[in-house]
Amino acid sequence: MAMEEIKSLQIGIVTVGNELMSGRIQDTNTSFLARQFQWQGWQVAVSLAVGDDEEMIARALAFCLSQTEAVIVTGGLGPTADDITTAAVARAFQLPLVTDAGALRHIRGIFSRYGLKWTDNNAKQAVFPQGAEIIANPVGTAPGFALRREGRIVAVIPGVPAEVERITTEGLLPLLRRVFPGASRHLAVRTLKTFGLSEAAVDQAVADVDLSGAEIGFYPRFPENHIVLSVRDGRDEAAARARLAVVEEEICRRLGTHVFARDEETLEGVTAALLREQGRTIAVAESCTGGLITDRLTDVPGSSAYLERGLVTYSNRSKVELLGVPVTVLETSGAVSEETACAMAAGVRDRAGTDLGLATTGIAGPDGGSEAKPVGTVYIALTDGVETYCRKFSYRWNRRRIKVIASQAALLMLKRYLAGEPPAKIP
Amino acid sequence: MAMEEIKSLQIGIVTVGNELMSGRIQDTNTSFLARQFQWQGWQVAVSLAVGDDEEMIARALAFCLSQTEAVIVTGGLGPTADDITTAAVARAFQLPLVTDAGALRHIRGIFSRYGLKWTDNNAKQAVFPQGAEIIANPVGTAPGFALRREGRIVAVIPGVPAEVERITTEGLLPLLRRVFPGASRHLAVRTLKTFGLSEAAVDQAVADVDLSGAEIGFYPRFPENHIVLSVRDGRDEAAARARLAVVEEEICRRLGTHVFARDEETLEGVTAALLREQGRTIAVAESCTGGLITDRLTDVPGSSAYLERGLVTYSNRSKVELLGVPVTVLETSGAVSEETACAMAAGVRDRAGTDLGLATTGIAGPDGGSEAKPVGTVYIALTDGVETYCRKFSYRWNRRRIKVIASQAALLMLKRYLAGEPPAKIP
Repeated sequence: MAMEEIKSLQIGIVTVGNELMSGRIQDTNTSFLARQFQWQGWQVAVSLAVGDDEEMIARALAFCLSQTEAVIVTGGLGPTADDITTAAVARAFQLPLVTDAGALRHIRGIFSRYGLKWTDNNAKQAVFPQGAEIIANPVGTAPGFALRREGRIVAVIPGVPAEVERITTEGLLPLLRRVFPGASRHLAVRTLKTFGLSEAAVDQAVADVDLSGAEIGFYPRFPENHIVLSVRDGRDEAAARARLAVVEEEICRRLGTHVFARDEETLEGVTAALLREQGRTIAVAESCTGGLITDRLTDVPGSSAYLERGLVTYSNRSKVELLGVPVTVLETSGAVSEETACAMAAGVRDRAGTDLGLATTGIAGPDGGSEAKPVGTVYIALTDGVETYCRKFSYRWNRRRIKVIASQAALLMLKRYLAGEPPAKIP
Repeated sequence: MAMEEIKSLQIGIVTVGNELMSGRIQDTNTSFLARQFQWQGWQVAVSLAVGDDEEMIARALAFCLSQTEAVIVTGGLGPTADDITTAAVARAFQLPLVTDAGALRHIRGIFSRYGLKWTDNNAKQAVFPQGAEIIANPVGTAPGFALRREGRIVAVIPGVPAEVERITTEGLLPLLRRVFPGASRHLAVRTLKTFGLSEAAVDQAVADVDLSGAEIGFYPRFPENHIVLSVRDGRDEAAARARLAVVEEEICRRLGTHVFARDEETLEGVTAALLREQGRTIAVAESCTGGLITDRLTDVPGSSAYLERGLVTYSNRSKVELLGVPVTVLETSGAVSEETACAMAAGVRDRAGTDLGLATTGIAGPDGGSEAKPVGTVYIALTDGVETYCRKFSYRWNRRRIKVIASQAALLMLKRYLAGEPPAKIP
């Protein structure tokens, strides 16, 4: 299928504020704006953050304008002396500053409506570069504004995240669609979440898939690796979705059960959904994972429907008392062993009266390892009262990461069991 | 005391990755790096984010180099085809790419040590621009590298946050201090971690503290609020530390037991240290926190010394069977009540034979609330067999945040008890 070539609208973002440059504040506006633009089929080519410095704002603006067709500037529109974005933009465009009577009425109106004390510095928020188009702010005093020159546009909006969100949806996106009517593309996106393969192995497994018309990206999210597929098409959203479905199917075929969830789904979420669908209940006995499996399962709303109990049996005594693990098993095989893991899973299932029992035992470190059982040795067992599955894992990583990856392996074993896929060794 | 005027080192940051440009990922590396540099007395003048695009990386690099003396590039050092940062930097500097034998051994060593399957694309991470100084990566396969030209430096490091943190502390900061020896200032820094006061309340409580010579910053880290105090002095580190101690003492005096930890300490860490020091043991019974308290306590190495067991008694049946909560209590007061919380704490302590019992019960939502007990109602109880403390909390927030803030309140109640401070209502 021939894809119509439409150049995507290229956007630059400049965020302004000293608090960003000291690391005091985590900028969230850029990723919000980027998502909004991505959904329109537009492309953020570059984003910059600079302090409240007129010269630096002007340089950032000039750099962005040399790279992109639309530049969004956020922040530095407040009433105080350190807010100088409007002045910097006016200077960069060599425009005088003028007060907008309508904007001034809007600001004064907010002050009188909420009984706030007027101070003259607030009038600063009604000052704009001459000829600017004003962008209304439905949730704050400072309106935004836009300047157009030679087919390019600079839009300036406040930096308060709640204001950015409303102004973007209600003012900025409509403005950009109006200025660049041909720039929208239909876009279909799919995230596939994988576990048990390294980023390089995922890459290699899908290297020769025919991607024509689609783009692929790899995103490690310990302990998961995410694949993002996207298809753009200038004319036809249905065609984009169809093309995406073909590529997705082929990639899923190659990665098999390593793919455990899509888009916003989580491993605990899909596992919980299977438990609910099948009306099955579970009890969990954790040693090395320390409660993390239960914590993850209870992050899903409504978890009391399937989770009867979770026991963190850290001591040998609690393994014997609460799970009925035979003392002889602990003495002969040790607390970290296949025998103990299986006895824990069986014991928690029996005593809780649930359909399934899931158990972990291992050495999270940094101490407690031996040559035979080094730090990172983990046994995971799952039983339904008839069949019992047990796997041994050898992880590197630090204590927290061993807990995280072991909880992931345990949930995946459970998910595969519920999905009718025989639990297999997860590398 | 006169402060010696030293020009601050100007730094630029370039983060690379399509996932940043689509808004899929919130960049946290820039603010981490900015804080680290701030603590050295250095200044981030500009930061840029660009996609995995060779041309755009080169332009961003050129722009940063025109504005600053040191440019840090993060991201795009992975083994996959879309990771092209090294190639882009080499091209920008017009340098050929060469394989470093030592780096290749390092990467192959990791693969063989952990029994990972070698694929040839991994060798890409041992390729650097000719003449580059390699920056070791203690926690991953991809080393970083630095290039120097005309008194300026470009340092390239991976983008995985855990790797950024280690490489920055162990490799990047020492490198920059070596290259720009005159730019360092003596600096004394202290982070105070608080819980139970809003950012505005913390700000107000310390508003009139004499800060002269010191700077203060507020960083909300849900559910904690962190205060960072810093003192700079061009000549004398001892004087900076002494000044810091005075300011710190006054701020701690005002915030009282809301300050629970300093610098790299965590609430679970200081609580665990108190348990170990006092040789006390604990058992935990969790309902609404779903295992999170136990998960946090077991994140601390050596937790088996004090944690005997943790029970996630989600069902009423498990509360009765495992904790001995009387059925009449559940029937008359309900599972979410002071009576149940106290019975849970007493029950888990008795049956585990520990010194202390800690329990939570509540409604994490989104369902299950009522007018009398809305979502966010949480009871936390602590008992030592003689005294029992129980507090009721009413949280807003979503399910995950209710779990997190309730686990925090429970650990703080325990920490205060151990520190000899009567557990008080934590707002």
